[in-house]
Amino acid sequence: MKTLKLDLGDRSYPIYIGSNLLQQSKLFARHIVSNHVMVVTNDTIAPLYLDKVLETLSSFQIEILVLPDGEQFKDLETTSRIFDALMEKRFSRNATLIALGGGVIGDMVGFAAACYQRGIGFFQVPTTLLAQVDSSVGGKTGVNHPCGKNMIGAFYQPQCVIADTSVLTTLDDRQLSAGLAEVIKYGLIRDPEFFSWLELNIELMLQRQPETLVFAIERSCMNKAAIVAEDELESGVRALLNLGHTFGHAIERGSGYGNYLHGEAVAIGICQAADLSCRLGWITEKNKARIIELFQRAKLPVIPPSELDCSQYIDCMSVDKKNLDGKIRLVLLNAIGRATLPCSVSQTLLEATLNEYGRN
Amino acid sequence: MKTLKLDLGDRSYPIYIGSNLLQQSKLFARHIVSNHVMVVTNDTIAPLYLDKVLETLSSFQIEILVLPDGEQFKDLETTSRIFDALMEKRFSRNATLIALGGGVIGDMVGFAAACYQRGIGFFQVPTTLLAQVDSSVGGKTGVNHPCGKNMIGAFYQPQCVIADTSVLTTLDDRQLSAGLAEVIKYGLIRDPEFFSWLELNIELMLQRQPETLVFAIERSCMNKAAIVAEDELESGVRALLNLGHTFGHAIERGSGYGNYLHGEAVAIGICQAADLSCRLGWITEKNKARIIELFQRAKLPVIPPSELDCSQYIDCMSVDKKNLDGKIRLVLLNAIGRATLPCSVSQTLLEATLNEYGRN
Repeated sequence: MKTLKLDLGDRSYPIYIGSNLLQQSKLFARHIVSNHVMVVTNDTIAPLYLDKVLETLSSFQIEILVLPDGEQFKDLETTSRIFDALMEKRFSRNATLIALGGGVIGDMVGFAAACYQRGIGFFQVPTTLLAQVDSSVGGKTGVNHPCGKNMIGAFYQPQCVIADTSVLTTLDDRQLSAGLAEVIKYGLIRDPEFFSWLELNIELMLQRQPETLVFAIERSCMNKAAIVAEDELESGVRALLNLGHTFGHAIERGSGYGNYLHGEAVAIGICQAADLSCRLGWITEKNKARIIELFQRAKLPVIPPSELDCSQYIDCMSVDKKNLDGKIRLVLLNAIGRATLPCSVSQTLLEATLNEYGRN
Repeated sequence: MKTLKLDLGDRSYPIYIGSNLLQQSKLFARHIVSNHVMVVTNDTIAPLYLDKVLETLSSFQIEILVLPDGEQFKDLETTSRIFDALMEKRFSRNATLIALGGGVIGDMVGFAAACYQRGIGFFQVPTTLLAQVDSSVGGKTGVNHPCGKNMIGAFYQPQCVIADTSVLTTLDDRQLSAGLAEVIKYGLIRDPEFFSWLELNIELMLQRQPETLVFAIERSCMNKAAIVAEDELESGVRALLNLGHTFGHAIERGSGYGNYLHGEAVAIGICQAADLSCRLGWITEKNKARIIELFQRAKLPVIPPSELDCSQYIDCMSVDKKNLDGKIRLVLLNAIGRATLPCSVSQTLLEATLNEYGRN
């Protein structure tokens, strides 16, 4: 097991990465402060891993809540069900919530933990590659609003992240690829060596070669932890993590939450960001092609959905947390391994990307 | 105008107290960072003060949201209406919400500000005595759950508090008295001199003598600011502010949100806390009588509602943020001017208070 630390003063916490961590009672017990523990998971993960986790936590009084799986349930209404369960069981302020699932469960349970009694402890136990390399780390929690992704939430850090790499064996291929989108992102925004390593190893990752996966998860978490430690509340450098996400969120919302996996939408979005960066003369055609090719090799979509036209895109993109005073602001690329802070760009070039990239 | 400062490092903010502050454009403008401003108020306050505030803010692009008045609307559903309005108007992260109203509006708008895009700026512009002396200061935001008061929320500080004492002239008598309950509380928990001053001046306050009101508001805010500066997240001394509130919240919920004003329920609750403190031998019968008499002179109820019996009370009290591991913990009195940190007490004595105080 590897232990990384996310350094945030008195909100610091460990990120445990390794195989068979779900069975390690002592690891869990280390961060539980009272007998009140609730495991919140979804109906895909429950049949696979809930019993294992319950056995690991058998010395505690455990409550269980199983929610429906999917981005379309990441909303205030489903969050209310967590509050209802906590209230019904009379959970106190020293209770612990355990988010066992992918990014949707982690974001939503984290938000419930942030709000219940103005804040109780919670664990991130990510069960998808995407959640292990990205969403479980850094304390961004929240839910979607019908008009915009992750629009309601809190910065709220967990007590720990327990990333059991053994669970990736049951992850379906589509989810595995979706996780790779965020892995590739780290290479693009700040780690060119890692990008090159991914170009050499992407097929091994698709084959789920354990050492390759563990290395990529660690490297991703190190990148994420370094950025979050520098800028917890996203007043600066943390925004780089949003490369491709303004396009991606527009795809997720515009095509109906749940139709594209988050990582799939991000893959297309990063390709669009690369295309726009290229139109601006910031990256070469060759590098743009390298980026698109790596996503393709990772079995990810790189072409935007045909049903979204330019004006719908711009409408969806105009709802984004990075925007200021109604202006769309984007994270783009200056090179492979170097992203720009959010900036507004020429409407003409943005429209060119939206109208032309992947449309012919 | 008096300016107090709530000292919380980079979350510090001023509390402005004085007459005709709603007209002071420069005061408002000082804390607004972008052109996106939304005033959220209720249908009682809107006809009285909304036009005045809109005129004051006429140099900004202002949106308005008027919510129904009353504790029964302080819930997630009504909060969603604030999110909907912000999304509809495409408000960015640098937007400002203005909470124009009493404690319900302040708590709920503050919570919406905490969650929208993971946090935007907001002003507290309290229009009731209770909100001016208590709820607008200190960053406790949140809404009720059907099973418990203020169970969903956040610690989230405003940009400033603007307490215009002129608005108290239109406050109805019942609301004025409700505010006095929290004023008296400060005397009881940490300021015995202030309690004695209130014993001399309570009738002048009911007559709304301006100097007396302003003095009491300032003194209350000073007490509140000192406690919050010491313990923002309520890990210790801040709990003292909850004197009488465990009983009071049980009354509010047990009798149906909206039937008792918060301050009315707190007045009864503090009398019950005094009764229990007396049964424990911590305060004298004479001091208990002084406390009850002062609430009576302030035209506040001091007798618990007859429809709540002991077991219903205990059921409601068992849902409280101060409880730990399912045990009821109460703030009680050691003297007039000295409260205890939350502690669990003999069930027999608690039941004696619930069964006997005010019941015969």
